[in-house]
Amino acid sequence: MKGAVLYGPGDVRVETREDPTIVEPTDAILRLSASCICGSDLWPYRGVGTSPGPRPMGHEYVGVVEEVGREVRNIKPGEFVVGSFFASDNTCPICHAGYQSRCVDARPMGALGAQAPYLRVPLADGTLVATPEIPPDAMIPSLLAASDVLGTGWFAADAAAVGPGKTVVVVGDGAVGLLGVLAAKQMGAERIIAMSRHTNRQRLALAFGATDIVTERGDEGVARIKEMTDGLGAQSVIEAVGTQESMMQAIRSTRPGGHVGFVGVTHGVAIPGLELFSAEVHLHGGPAPVRRYLPTLIDLIWKGEIDPGQVFDQTLPLGQAADGYRAMDERRAIKTLLTL
Amino acid sequence: MKGAVLYGPGDVRVETREDPTIVEPTDAILRLSASCICGSDLWPYRGVGTSPGPRPMGHEYVGVVEEVGREVRNIKPGEFVVGSFFASDNTCPICHAGYQSRCVDARPMGALGAQAPYLRVPLADGTLVATPEIPPDAMIPSLLAASDVLGTGWFAADAAAVGPGKTVVVVGDGAVGLLGVLAAKQMGAERIIAMSRHTNRQRLALAFGATDIVTERGDEGVARIKEMTDGLGAQSVIEAVGTQESMMQAIRSTRPGGHVGFVGVTHGVAIPGLELFSAEVHLHGGPAPVRRYLPTLIDLIWKGEIDPGQVFDQTLPLGQAADGYRAMDERRAIKTLLTL
Repeated sequence: MKGAVLYGPGDVRVETREDPTIVEPTDAILRLSASCICGSDLWPYRGVGTSPGPRPMGHEYVGVVEEVGREVRNIKPGEFVVGSFFASDNTCPICHAGYQSRCVDARPMGALGAQAPYLRVPLADGTLVATPEIPPDAMIPSLLAASDVLGTGWFAADAAAVGPGKTVVVVGDGAVGLLGVLAAKQMGAERIIAMSRHTNRQRLALAFGATDIVTERGDEGVARIKEMTDGLGAQSVIEAVGTQESMMQAIRSTRPGGHVGFVGVTHGVAIPGLELFSAEVHLHGGPAPVRRYLPTLIDLIWKGEIDPGQVFDQTLPLGQAADGYRAMDERRAIKTLLTL
Repeated sequence: MKGAVLYGPGDVRVETREDPTIVEPTDAILRLSASCICGSDLWPYRGVGTSPGPRPMGHEYVGVVEEVGREVRNIKPGEFVVGSFFASDNTCPICHAGYQSRCVDARPMGALGAQAPYLRVPLADGTLVATPEIPPDAMIPSLLAASDVLGTGWFAADAAAVGPGKTVVVVGDGAVGLLGVLAAKQMGAERIIAMSRHTNRQRLALAFGATDIVTERGDEGVARIKEMTDGLGAQSVIEAVGTQESMMQAIRSTRPGGHVGFVGVTHGVAIPGLELFSAEVHLHGGPAPVRRYLPTLIDLIWKGEIDPGQVFDQTLPLGQAADGYRAMDERRAIKTLLTL
């Protein structure tokens, strides 16, 4: 099969890879319906924290089960399934507590390369959630979003303790931040302030439920949020970037006793202890336990209550994956869907 | 009156200070029944982060109301009261959310000097909680503990989401850590692991409800906690020191999805963002909103259900405050009560 492979900074190639096969008896092989490029793929694409040598890319996936290993009980060939970017057994104490991305046997799907037409998924019974039936094509982008960016935005809103009557600030206008807006709306937030300076992203934020847009950043952005919240800061703040500036902007936009949910993969961030002590916020984040939310998210998509697939504003055939990476890196595209 | 004044590192003097008087109409003047020295007083005593020039010391207090300003409604002369180390109005949105130490009008009591026989308390109605009647002398140490160290240990356990069936680790065997053990016991923790290498502190931890003692620290301490928790780490960890080592020991002792409650005043701490992201713990802490807990704590002490006053293992007259600072600095005393 053909699949996207990263050779080095800025160098993505689509080349022949071996077709995946069952390796462990708990594996499933999926024929993917679509794949896509993640904001977190841009870190290795830019050469940040990457290991040398070619590596297969992609960790978001939906598709039809082709084959299962002999110990797979619940997932059946022919079913349409959605999985997370971490495979998990969904039976260990950490999974039971709802943190499947930190399962004692967690497997990063990125290592297996989901930007390809076929994918091996370990721990299939714990990882995959089947849809009620084969979805219509128009629903594929939304289900694909559930596999990572929607689940991650949802976790961020949950970690930020979003709820009815609250004011929520979203730092970051990438796909995850935008879907954090959608999640906050679904969770009943009263006011949702999206921090963004790009008109097309602002438009999508408003479509997803943002009530206000703030274009200022850093200290000016924080001052603006304080002005809008009687000098207190917001109750709930979503951090969806991962830089020192965005993390501090999030913490400083939160009132004492409020919650920061952070999901941007942190790069070069160090949180000053005394400032965190004085801020007295709750801080929670990490790799989103998407598996926890998949049944809820699939249900909302199935009923047409949410349409997270709108974050895909570029569609390219897999063969042009390199163009997709370039467009996202240059922020010309919010998120690129790859047809297979 | 006489009061303790810090002149510089290691230089505490008891000297004549002006008697406090009503300054604002919301003030109360208390005749204190006892005072004490706090672990956090040792930071300026050691010359860390202190401003030059003599400063009155002490922020923990219980006593009888002598006089109130003309706008004080609920607190009456003759009542015995307990207050927190931050005065608060208890009416603003931050207070209503339970974060009185970050009240929009919070006043640090340390600036007023509670190591003295009389004390002015601003915002008396919001700050002070009266006991049902004048307590017996034997109860004074426990009520004094409620003013800070008990309330702080309690907040730490609350921030660490301690609850029935959980395993709790307590990093720090000072008065706050020990009272974190007591709080965890009251909140129904199944297993309470105190990290301590001092026999007298271990003894008190066991008396307060610790089920296990771990003497190892740093990486070895973390490894020991992992061994004791099926390799997962604890669900709830209390950090009651405030150094880089103790903070990282606390975070690394917590399982993914678990909670760290940190109350040690942080000094020189920087939390690596990527490690916090990967750890996927909840992190919450800061100056304890003691006022939130005072009614509960006074009630438990009044009924004899808890005896937090046991943390005072040294009693000195105020005139010997300097000896008390020295004993706590050299860790010869857990906590020193000053008679007035």
